Amino acid sequence: MNGSNILGYKYSAMADRLLSAFNPSTRKILKGQFHIATPEEIDEAMKLATAAYQTYKDTSPKERAAFLNAIADEIMSLGDALVERTMAESGLPKGRVEGERGRTVNQLRLFAKVIEEGSWVEASIDTAIPDRTPFPKADIRKILVPTGPVVVYTASNFPLAFSTAGGDTASALAAGNPVVVKAHESHLGVNTLVSIAIQRAAERTGMPDGVFCSLNGTGQELGQALVRHPLTKSVAFTGSLKAGKAIFDAAAERAEPIPVFSEMGSINPVVILDEALANRGEQIAKQYAGSVTLGVGQFCTNPGILVVKNGEGFSSFVNTLAAEMQQMTPQTMLNENVCANYNKSKDLVLNEAGVTLESESSNSGEGLQGRPTVASVDAKHFINNHKLQEEVFGPFTMVVKCANDSEVLQVIQCLKGQLTATIMGEENELTKQKNVIHHLQERVGRIIFNGVPTGVEVCHSMQHGGPYPATTDSRFTSVGTGAIKRFARPIAFQNWPQALLPEALKDENSLGIWRLVNGEQTKDPIS
Amino acid sequence: MNGSNILGYKYSAMADRLLSAFNPSTRKILKGQFHIATPEEIDEAMKLATAAYQTYKDTSPKERAAFLNAIADEIMSLGDALVERTMAESGLPKGRVEGERGRTVNQLRLFAKVIEEGSWVEASIDTAIPDRTPFPKADIRKILVPTGPVVVYTASNFPLAFSTAGGDTASALAAGNPVVVKAHESHLGVNTLVSIAIQRAAERTGMPDGVFCSLNGTGQELGQALVRHPLTKSVAFTGSLKAGKAIFDAAAERAEPIPVFSEMGSINPVVILDEALANRGEQIAKQYAGSVTLGVGQFCTNPGILVVKNGEGFSSFVNTLAAEMQQMTPQTMLNENVCANYNKSKDLVLNEAGVTLESESSNSGEGLQGRPTVASVDAKHFINNHKLQEEVFGPFTMVVKCANDSEVLQVIQCLKGQLTATIMGEENELTKQKNVIHHLQERVGRIIFNGVPTGVEVCHSMQHGGPYPATTDSRFTSVGTGAIKRFARPIAFQNWPQALLPEALKDENSLGIWRLVNGEQTKDPIS
Repeated sequence: MNGSNILGYKYSAMADRLLSAFNPSTRKILKGQFHIATPEEIDEAMKLATAAYQTYKDTSPKERAAFLNAIADEIMSLGDALVERTMAESGLPKGRVEGERGRTVNQLRLFAKVIEEGSWVEASIDTAIPDRTPFPKADIRKILVPTGPVVVYTASNFPLAFSTAGGDTASALAAGNPVVVKAHESHLGVNTLVSIAIQRAAERTGMPDGVFCSLNGTGQELGQALVRHPLTKSVAFTGSLKAGKAIFDAAAERAEPIPVFSEMGSINPVVILDEALANRGEQIAKQYAGSVTLGVGQFCTNPGILVVKNGEGFSSFVNTLAAEMQQMTPQTMLNENVCANYNKSKDLVLNEAGVTLESESSNSGEGLQGRPTVASVDAKHFINNHKLQEEVFGPFTMVVKCANDSEVLQVIQCLKGQLTATIMGEENELTKQKNVIHHLQERVGRIIFNGVPTGVEVCHSMQHGGPYPATTDSRFTSVGTGAIKRFARPIAFQNWPQALLPEALKDENSLGIWRLVNGEQTKDPIS
Repeated sequence: MNGSNILGYKYSAMADRLLSAFNPSTRKILKGQFHIATPEEIDEAMKLATAAYQTYKDTSPKERAAFLNAIADEIMSLGDALVERTMAESGLPKGRVEGERGRTVNQLRLFAKVIEEGSWVEASIDTAIPDRTPFPKADIRKILVPTGPVVVYTASNFPLAFSTAGGDTASALAAGNPVVVKAHESHLGVNTLVSIAIQRAAERTGMPDGVFCSLNGTGQELGQALVRHPLTKSVAFTGSLKAGKAIFDAAAERAEPIPVFSEMGSINPVVILDEALANRGEQIAKQYAGSVTLGVGQFCTNPGILVVKNGEGFSSFVNTLAAEMQQMTPQTMLNENVCANYNKSKDLVLNEAGVTLESESSNSGEGLQGRPTVASVDAKHFINNHKLQEEVFGPFTMVVKCANDSEVLQVIQCLKGQLTATIMGEENELTKQKNVIHHLQERVGRIIFNGVPTGVEVCHSMQHGGPYPATTDSRFTSVGTGAIKRFARPIAFQNWPQALLPEALKDENSLGIWRLVNGEQTKDPIS
């Protein structure tokens, strides 16, 4: 296992300070020693990325698409070695890892398609009116252009799909930006394997040296150094509120503040309406026991609270949920920190006034396994205690018992920004919930009817984001094709000669993309 | 002159602390005393706006368009009273004020059209595939929704078009957000007149109480209180770097950070290429003397430096420019601060090493008039002295004399983010300037060929923004129809019942808007 930092087409291992990878299932150190990036290596990575940017930004969409597809191919070529190392470093089962690899590869190919199709650049053209009075109207044409080197902080909970070649990297590269990855300390080997795959793909498709770099180090040291580096132009992060906010604060303090896309999770409230509870409470309980424990509860969209009115079906719902959770088997969590934090934050909640432990897995688990747990609390205690409103990252959920509709609304109103909210109900009763819907919508990026929040479809219409503290920028998504918009900004060309305009803005529209021409959507050339 | 704060449909004058308006031409206090908003009034305004938001966000585009058009009508109904008060409070001549009023009214009507057409919401629909394996695909539909109460900080340099009913207010209201305006201390009377016009328009078109509020106060007190108020959801500002950055910092420090759109001006570099200089240097000099002194140089896009190589035509260019500037008449500046800052920052530049005063208006001006001035400096001094790279707000420009192409590039590379850059040249020589174009583009929101940066067309393709410190968010524009995107965020509806979806996302597409359906742009309904 090569433990170097990856600086463009070069390996670099200047420091004697080393990190190791750890297997959370066996609790043993894995082979491979990873050199912590020195300040010089960090600086070199950012300089290489900046130099690469000048040519990479002008590659054609076709060339960039070939690069993205080559990355996908190289990742698949890693074969079982990647799957096994991912399993070893994350404790995730084979099926999940293979599924996540599929998602990662599909995501790269999807962004390749998006840029080959080309309309994502939002080309807009207002043609000149030279004889307009009192002033002539100039020819003005606008397009999205890349913003420069992007630093990607990889996530612990998706070692492939939100990591080295995950959605952030794929969308940043697609938009025309070099990427510098901060490897996650839990997935150092996976990061190395995937980084080398990207490096190979870049070489194979003739990309400039420095289009991709990858560095090892700690969040506090390397993480802070990267966001504060003057050549960093934007950053993407998926992880905890504490770490994401530290990056946001560092970016705001810079001499030149930069955009930060921190996705920091949430408690993803689920509201169960009366009729649904009465008609199919047990079925919902079963469905949710599955969603809460999926992937050992280690999803950003894990349902953390279930808001239910104490009426017909309430007891059988809670009893079924408790029984289901009791039967769930503890599974290994991602790493020591995640497991320790799960136990700590769960215990903190369970010890708060008014909180009742409803059930936990009958199997107490061993090692770094997370024990599925369900608690309950009444609305009054929940509303008045902000500690109960924080995320418990792991296979835990809490039933919030409301006495009436007013309490349901108050519970929702005390919540901060969320990635998702879900309403379980019958269609006819949903129509009477205008207030509930309003207050949920104000707080979320995605609102689901009769489903579970886990499972984030990679598609055009996905919004994986939400008001703070779910993310630091609710205007963008980190999943789906819209994610590419994070790493671009508009620039207008006024009276610019045809020959020098970006291809997408030339009269003839040789790319055949959708453009706004004098305010009308069209694929027509300008005659 | 009513000097109250405007809290929805109510006037409020709780404080005894008063502000007065000042006529920069006569240097006399104008009639009317304006009550500084108390903390209670600030709080009430934000609460009213938040309450109004719950219904205003659900008004139909047609209703909101009627409101915007009614504001335009009410502003025109103010007639000469508005024109005269604007002239009195700004020192601007009648023609300019009438032109700006026209722009303000057209802007409101343009945003009315944008929302009536409706496609701005970026509706995107991915239909369900229930039998997909291994997992069914859910129905997911995304749309832009308003973000909540917007605080608008009005600008000194456009008392109408970037002020109470200017582009920020028009775009925020168009997107479905209530607006709370901080009146500019220089335009208290204009703000009152326009605020009452908006209030009338709101009442006439049945808008909720609190859809618009307007408060008097100072930047340090009221300005800070508004950005820090927990109910404020985003802010728009046009003005100085110092004030804009203070608002940005306050927003980042909040418990819930919010988006800040501060447009803070720039020096708008102009690069004059060799052939153009040789062929038509004198003509360019005349054109630029006009652009530099337009509106007493008080435009965000005023050309602050002219980057020229010392070759054929250089001397006659500088001499012509100097002669033109000498003939320009000093005009009254916007207020005492603006005039004092102009003189101070100009003197500071003129006293720096290597800077030569080339000429100033032969008329030294009186009172608060700004004296047109042109200086020159060689590239080496410019590059090594960051004081020369700062904006001098007023009718001032500086010729930066370069010895060779390399110095031209170095001058560009030392510049921070800018609203605009301009290249004056022949088409054939532009093709040889790839590096110059690259480094200019990296720094600007709009790049102009053979024109002047002053004059910002309100259209679909305009980008009035740019990398920091030109603005705090280069991904958005504050002029043109794109400005509406600042005050909206995407939300996704998953498996949501047809009847409860926003109109724009329903299968039938009754609004007839462009939508992305399974990745394809179409106006077709979903069958």
